Amino acid sequence: MWIRTAKKVNKRHLAGVVAGILLVNTVDASSNEAGQAPSSSWWSWNKEKPGETASQTDINERQARKDKYPQILRTPRSVVDHSLSGVSPLSPVRILRPNPHLEIAFDVRNRNPVYVLERMVVTEEKNNKTPKKRHNFYEEMSLPESFRARNQHYHQSGYDRGHMAPAADFGYQDVDGDPVAADTYTLCNIAPQQSDFNRGIWANLEAWTRRVARDASQRRDRTTYVVTGPLWLPRQQVAPQKFLYSYPALGTPPSLVAVPTHFFKVVVVVAADAPGGHHHIHSFACFVLANDEQSNQRTLADALVRWTDLEAVTGLELFPQWVSPDWKKA
Amino acid sequence: MWIRTAKKVNKRHLAGVVAGILLVNTVDASSNEAGQAPSSSWWSWNKEKPGETASQTDINERQARKDKYPQILRTPRSVVDHSLSGVSPLSPVRILRPNPHLEIAFDVRNRNPVYVLERMVVTEEKNNKTPKKRHNFYEEMSLPESFRARNQHYHQSGYDRGHMAPAADFGYQDVDGDPVAADTYTLCNIAPQQSDFNRGIWANLEAWTRRVARDASQRRDRTTYVVTGPLWLPRQQVAPQKFLYSYPALGTPPSLVAVPTHFFKVVVVVAADAPGGHHHIHSFACFVLANDEQSNQRTLADALVRWTDLEAVTGLELFPQWVSPDWKKA
Repeated sequence: MWIRTAKKVNKRHLAGVVAGILLVNTVDASSNEAGQAPSSSWWSWNKEKPGETASQTDINERQARKDKYPQILRTPRSVVDHSLSGVSPLSPVRILRPNPHLEIAFDVRNRNPVYVLERMVVTEEKNNKTPKKRHNFYEEMSLPESFRARNQHYHQSGYDRGHMAPAADFGYQDVDGDPVAADTYTLCNIAPQQSDFNRGIWANLEAWTRRVARDASQRRDRTTYVVTGPLWLPRQQVAPQKFLYSYPALGTPPSLVAVPTHFFKVVVVVAADAPGGHHHIHSFACFVLANDEQSNQRTLADALVRWTDLEAVTGLELFPQWVSPDWKKA
Repeated sequence: MWIRTAKKVNKRHLAGVVAGILLVNTVDASSNEAGQAPSSSWWSWNKEKPGETASQTDINERQARKDKYPQILRTPRSVVDHSLSGVSPLSPVRILRPNPHLEIAFDVRNRNPVYVLERMVVTEEKNNKTPKKRHNFYEEMSLPESFRARNQHYHQSGYDRGHMAPAADFGYQDVDGDPVAADTYTLCNIAPQQSDFNRGIWANLEAWTRRVARDASQRRDRTTYVVTGPLWLPRQQVAPQKFLYSYPALGTPPSLVAVPTHFFKVVVVVAADAPGGHHHIHSFACFVLANDEQSNQRTLADALVRWTDLEAVTGLELFPQWVSPDWKKA
């Protein structure tokens, strides 16, 4: 129950007068569930329409997958003795671990991934032998409903549901059957991509990455790690030291999926000096590509960026245990 | 060292040809530190000018404060046994715990707080007795330099350095001297605010919150928690199910501080049923206010929003141990 009578109160006395009445008393509120929300000129909320529903087969598949890999939502609650630790809000960045080759960090605020990490170990025996099945995109059931990206967000939006970790990467994985590829169809691994971009240079980059991983796997001491994600970069400079961000979002407030302006991918081949010994980065490449058709006019080499610049815009520290300050700036 | 020769390669053969040459060999790179960054039409990087530097007094003060309160950057690394846990990127949301009354979550991507949590326990003896000292804003030294918000970002921008946890809140705290108020001057607790807004209705809301906390503290079984932070909400609807975000950012890429479109604050008074017993939310209020001068035309009651809507836009789960589904939707 929201008290409105404070509206006409003289501003000078506001602090004193409303102290007792603006606070919603929880006993009153629960006894009056029909109470109106406040009129909010800052945003008119409309309830989202129900999303596309999953088939029973999908649900069974998901359950089977869940049983196989513990799906752990890690929430950055305090791990230290601290008087605030018990009451900290749960962070908007949720980290999901669907399986040993894939980790997804998802940002509830823009309903996009923050990063998706892949560990690509190609075993020749399985190569191209894993069944290529068509999966359905599905909502991430481990998130509260209002926090999820939904198929409804993308419906008739004109954007593809673009995979961050591509399903095809898991044709190379040493796993039984197909559950790992299916894990990439959670909408936590998805961001809105311009169709021609998704099927053009972005698909080329994904194919190139798989080739790198397969080549690296020729040697048993090499592992390929890939980190992929969306970016929002400013559109134009409007004054000295002042830039303007501008991008669309899909859905109905407060439930929106923001459309990234760019995507990044960093590919790292890690080598062991000796079996079981020290590891170091053998080679790497960092890419940033604009989420538009014009990107198809470019080559992958054009899209290379510095490691340090990529860290500055993504806010991620990448493989800190292996990086060398020497080549980071090169 | 960046290889450009792939530029003219026929796209159909790209994956095969560039697999070996796009990857930067780390040995080459470190032996060629003068190597040029790739020309990036996606963004022309300019190095940021050095920020304002802190005085020796500030530095001494900060060190003294650091010695007093362990300043812990919590990074959401894995806490489970998992093959990817050792190589996960460090999340762009960093959580700082400067003292037992204040916790700050900071997002490196937009160089703004995600939330700032305060525990306000007002002790009458100290009330209005704590020395009111003018502090200097300072960079957060526990973050890598390229990840920090800096005074330089705000310099001549036309925006105030707006406190999320206001310094004045700590005039009420039961602490020796003034270090807690000084903790609020870290740029991790700061977001760009329109001046008239900051000094107008936002200041009123802060004063109202302090009054609530002081009133609650009349009873020893009551504690007031406050969560404050920036928001980015879309500016207009451009099509069915399509909205446009638009907001400025301060600085020079890749180091930018985004200007929030709105700010939120939730004030919660928690009561204990019995000394040392079960706690519950006695009363609460959720506010959202636009970061502009027009907000001053409104009353605080106009700015009330639903708890559930606030969670949906902030992506935060607030006080999950205490909320009741009954009144959450009221």
